[in-house]
Amino acid sequence: MSTDAYAKVTGKVDYSNAPDPKSLIQKERDSAQFDVDQMNYFLEGSEERALEVRKFIHQMETDPILAASPHDYDATKAEHRENTLKKINRLTRYIEVETFDSFERRMSIISLMDPQFHTRIGVHFGLFVGCVRGTGTADQLGYWILKKESAYVKNIYGCFGMTELAHGSNVAGLETTATFDEENDEFIVNTPHLGATKWWIGGAAHSATHCSVYARLIVKGKDYGVKTFVVPLRDSEHNLMPGVAIGDIGAKMGRDGIDNGWIQFSHVRIPRYFMLQKYTKVSEDGEVTEPPLNQLSYGALLTGRVAMVKDAFRWSSRFVTIALRYAVGRKQFKAALAKDSDGESQLLDYPLHQRRLIPLLAMAYAFSNGANVLQEQADTSNDQLDEAVQNEDKALLDAGVEAMKSLFIASGSLKSTATWLTLNTIDQCRQACGGHGYSSYSGFGKGFNDFAVQCTWEGDNNILGMSVGKQLVKKYSGITKDGEKASGILEFLGNYKKYLGKEPVLQAEDLKNPRTILKAIEVTLIRASARANDIVDQKGGDTDFIGSDLVVLSKLLAHFFLYKSFLDKIDSIKDQPELYKVLDVLAQLYGASIVLEGFSGTFLTYSVATTEAIAHNSTDHIAELCSRVRPHVIPLTDSFMMSDMLINSAIGNYDGDIYKNYFKIVNTNNPPQVTKPPYAPALQGMLNRSSLEERQRFEYDDEALDILAGNA
Amino acid sequence: MSTDAYAKVTGKVDYSNAPDPKSLIQKERDSAQFDVDQMNYFLEGSEERALEVRKFIHQMETDPILAASPHDYDATKAEHRENTLKKINRLTRYIEVETFDSFERRMSIISLMDPQFHTRIGVHFGLFVGCVRGTGTADQLGYWILKKESAYVKNIYGCFGMTELAHGSNVAGLETTATFDEENDEFIVNTPHLGATKWWIGGAAHSATHCSVYARLIVKGKDYGVKTFVVPLRDSEHNLMPGVAIGDIGAKMGRDGIDNGWIQFSHVRIPRYFMLQKYTKVSEDGEVTEPPLNQLSYGALLTGRVAMVKDAFRWSSRFVTIALRYAVGRKQFKAALAKDSDGESQLLDYPLHQRRLIPLLAMAYAFSNGANVLQEQADTSNDQLDEAVQNEDKALLDAGVEAMKSLFIASGSLKSTATWLTLNTIDQCRQACGGHGYSSYSGFGKGFNDFAVQCTWEGDNNILGMSVGKQLVKKYSGITKDGEKASGILEFLGNYKKYLGKEPVLQAEDLKNPRTILKAIEVTLIRASARANDIVDQKGGDTDFIGSDLVVLSKLLAHFFLYKSFLDKIDSIKDQPELYKVLDVLAQLYGASIVLEGFSGTFLTYSVATTEAIAHNSTDHIAELCSRVRPHVIPLTDSFMMSDMLINSAIGNYDGDIYKNYFKIVNTNNPPQVTKPPYAPALQGMLNRSSLEERQRFEYDDEALDILAGNA
Repeated sequence: MSTDAYAKVTGKVDYSNAPDPKSLIQKERDSAQFDVDQMNYFLEGSEERALEVRKFIHQMETDPILAASPHDYDATKAEHRENTLKKINRLTRYIEVETFDSFERRMSIISLMDPQFHTRIGVHFGLFVGCVRGTGTADQLGYWILKKESAYVKNIYGCFGMTELAHGSNVAGLETTATFDEENDEFIVNTPHLGATKWWIGGAAHSATHCSVYARLIVKGKDYGVKTFVVPLRDSEHNLMPGVAIGDIGAKMGRDGIDNGWIQFSHVRIPRYFMLQKYTKVSEDGEVTEPPLNQLSYGALLTGRVAMVKDAFRWSSRFVTIALRYAVGRKQFKAALAKDSDGESQLLDYPLHQRRLIPLLAMAYAFSNGANVLQEQADTSNDQLDEAVQNEDKALLDAGVEAMKSLFIASGSLKSTATWLTLNTIDQCRQACGGHGYSSYSGFGKGFNDFAVQCTWEGDNNILGMSVGKQLVKKYSGITKDGEKASGILEFLGNYKKYLGKEPVLQAEDLKNPRTILKAIEVTLIRASARANDIVDQKGGDTDFIGSDLVVLSKLLAHFFLYKSFLDKIDSIKDQPELYKVLDVLAQLYGASIVLEGFSGTFLTYSVATTEAIAHNSTDHIAELCSRVRPHVIPLTDSFMMSDMLINSAIGNYDGDIYKNYFKIVNTNNPPQVTKPPYAPALQGMLNRSSLEERQRFEYDDEALDILAGNA
Repeated sequence: MSTDAYAKVTGKVDYSNAPDPKSLIQKERDSAQFDVDQMNYFLEGSEERALEVRKFIHQMETDPILAASPHDYDATKAEHRENTLKKINRLTRYIEVETFDSFERRMSIISLMDPQFHTRIGVHFGLFVGCVRGTGTADQLGYWILKKESAYVKNIYGCFGMTELAHGSNVAGLETTATFDEENDEFIVNTPHLGATKWWIGGAAHSATHCSVYARLIVKGKDYGVKTFVVPLRDSEHNLMPGVAIGDIGAKMGRDGIDNGWIQFSHVRIPRYFMLQKYTKVSEDGEVTEPPLNQLSYGALLTGRVAMVKDAFRWSSRFVTIALRYAVGRKQFKAALAKDSDGESQLLDYPLHQRRLIPLLAMAYAFSNGANVLQEQADTSNDQLDEAVQNEDKALLDAGVEAMKSLFIASGSLKSTATWLTLNTIDQCRQACGGHGYSSYSGFGKGFNDFAVQCTWEGDNNILGMSVGKQLVKKYSGITKDGEKASGILEFLGNYKKYLGKEPVLQAEDLKNPRTILKAIEVTLIRASARANDIVDQKGGDTDFIGSDLVVLSKLLAHFFLYKSFLDKIDSIKDQPELYKVLDVLAQLYGASIVLEGFSGTFLTYSVATTEAIAHNSTDHIAELCSRVRPHVIPLTDSFMMSDMLINSAIGNYDGDIYKNYFKIVNTNNPPQVTKPPYAPALQGMLNRSSLEERQRFEYDDEALDILAGNA
């Protein structure tokens, strides 16, 4: 049929109406009302850091081995394992020629780009090397890390043997033993039963040559509790050492590129000096010296949690960028509100869609600054402590320990709160992309699976939350009963007298004032701490009973920290009015949605907000703030300055050409030239199978039944 | 070293303290206070149905091809695809010899056992066959389904071509065309541009021979909107028909065993009678007859949503069973409250852990009954409609259409609410199992990924929720302004006059009365509808603006339905006091936690509950209810009667021998006899690489630099 004839039957129907998401996104970019470079400096904390981050991203995306790609979404577990090792091998060439400081900041990007790669190498550096540095003597550090070159992943690949099959969070309850044999000046490392099998040990299954083992120190029959020991697992030919049994833990929800393993020790002997003896020391004749100051090992635990708040920022940014670009480029139905009459409306012009995504964008902005502030506080405190120890300055040491305690609370509440919110953000963003969010190539599925473990490791979120809540209640009790002083992140508790009772702090007309919302959080924290304290008193001091209230306290405390530091930071850039204007609305939105709406029941229960304020906030105020951010969403997501390689999503590229990019990736990874599956014969065999009667050998037919019944 | 000598150095330390989760779980089972068989009948709706379900489970777990197994967790996408086809092939042998009714109920179990298998075969039966049945004439049904034997998956494998790359929820906006060519008495099916590519089509990539294509009917240049057409895709040798291009969509977040594909039609001609003409008819000379009654096609859409409420029950049950068995068998720390002094406490003896899991158990119980009631209502209404159509009974037809409308609202709110809650339940249960929850073999990861799509397909949850909320507000407006009558699920709106205003309905002392909580939900629904209605009036009738309030209304409506039918059902079994006693506490807990706490901000905003009630509920009441359910959790999960094959979790088996089962599965799937990875040479090459200087060919050394600078 000729084109003319075809045109004849098709008549006047217009087929040229193909979607054009690219120009929809570009249009919004063209009308940006602030400089995205300046906004990016704000997000990263400074121009210098922002440029360094871009350098790392550029280096890694031009490196053919390190760069992430859509092919990652089709890799099997075996391929992930092998590719990850290739990346580690490649990364060691960077480590050899850069400072440790630079390497640490590069790692923060790797954590987003390829989390399994980050963790697999992170176990060696953060945990094995970190453990030797934290609990080993200078000589032990010098030998294992420098002389043996494990600092460059040479000769030694370290893993970290803490968790056991039957023991996770309760480290003090671990059951692997290291028994001192005075006669031979050796420790005997042993796994007493299945439950004490080292479990989840990253790197153990394939890579590790050595393990920093957490084991109970037993000397002359006395149990000194859990200490750390360097135990070789494999020799230089990569064969298992005698007495060491190792297995592969296998498939995980995510991060399959990490070779997590289990380890059992059967009476494995190591020289006495393989025990890391910076604090606890064991002499030749079995004399045990215990450490004078346990708090000094606080710092190491903090590092991971502080880094995870940064992760929360980067991951939230990445996924909210994908969902917002999609929401601008995708059209669906015709909104009742739509101003122009031309076809369907952009998803993001629907108030519900704005409400689902724009608060998450505001939250990512709050995370960025909160992570920077927390990192600065951690750096300062660590430096202070180091100085105090070097100069044996008791006053500085006390101050440092106090600061560390505050940081412990801050990082515990922020790590748990921010990772929970980020995990939820990933899935909310997926749902906001409809069916396409379910394609692996959009990135959400792997993202969720990879991120999920952040809620569990380095302190299970619920246990961290409870512990933070307990410290709040304890401090509240100390201040009110024993006249203790409030300081650090809990300083606000000192104001308790002013804010007890039932006086509302937040009326509907206060919603536009972020400082009043901040005050409302503070007052809620005080009233909730007071109530929790009363209940704990009634229960004879037992805090377990109010575990879930404690977790709520911890979440609110994290928001108090995030909101306060966000508002302070914004106040400091009033001289950049074009940034200030947008950031001010973002801050208001974060406060109104994530905090005020997220905890509306709590604000109302403690009479901190009036019902009118909460009702107005929920129905009008948040919607209005969303609509004010709406014109800025593309520039605000561009400001994260994530390259397409980092975004790694078929529907989230910078150019906004959603459908063409997606179609291309699908067909690159699954060539349509292959028109039959490998199992096509089985498929055709099923469809073209013989009749049921024939397959039953006609035994069920009337004829057969007649014969069988003697009627034939 | 001899055993004696070893004993000497190890001294008196006791190594026999291995964990024994098995006896912890068995102990609770031994003290069950009700009959788990009777409870199972309650859950399944009747003894007869319960026994049928058990028969299906037994048949499938003894079938070597159909049974689920831990190996599924290590399968690659390619293996999932092939295994799923094997299962379909096997299942056809059951279909050939059982009734369609039985097959449908078997499918409900398959949906839990292996969701990708369920969907892949479900597309053929539920969507392709369902579409021909729903919109084809009796002759068309007879030909495609019976004569061609597609009812038994023979000759034809059907897929369902609705969604396009650029169009999902808005079916009326689809852009594929079917243009009538009068001259040849044919339709020309065409994909006008990339955006109109059929996308996500389950079965298209590998299996399908035919597709029921949704395309715009164009006759003589006029667009009659979207109708359905049977289009052959592949010939009997499984080669693509001319003009048909098909590709594989590739990897997904879950359900990788389904071969979702894309399809493009380039001017594909089909005979006129390949158009399904039950309602819309096109004559030889291009005369189009439109259907008299669109509502009659409602029923088909409902089926999927109703089934997904049952899915929500089964999936919640499965994962809460795993997490609760683990929580009883696992010990961690010593609780302050612990009564015996012997070692660590069981996880589930911590109030926070009870609070995290036991409400989800109560919710699963509420889902079970709600799903049964909804299914009965759907069956009754369908029968009524069929009867009305057969007898041309106008009055019965009107009643049937009214009942269908009510069911549309009920199934929309229940599908969205229950799938959201279930998805959340899976991840909460995972987190409650700590690190082991992240192992693929515990089942949570795959479970989450497979289930996630239920929030998106067959009506995106947010769109469904908005639509339900809109109907509530519209009905409220109709009742209050035009004196309309309230009926079906919205009948309660008729009481609006009594409950407007700000009078609280729920005081702290009412918490123990579930009927008062039910009343509180009803009053909240009325007040929230009234407020939404006011706002819509102010906005000139636009409901888009309050989209998120509408979704809240829909969720509350679902809980109203679930809670009411749960309470009614429990009231009906007062003659079984041992069941009644436990179910009564479960119902109270579901109301107090999932509903009252879950929507505390809403109950307070509308002054339905007092702040004292909410505070007491949150801190004491829920905890007390949890502690009352605590002794029954093992019998309550046993009552789901899920076999180990269905549970398919290394840490969730019936025998409770968590650590041994887990260790065994890990080592079966990853034999520890393989001590080196396939890429060991690369690993050793990295660790034993030459020095940096050598690799740099000594060009960066002082000697080289001296030469280069002319100083040598």
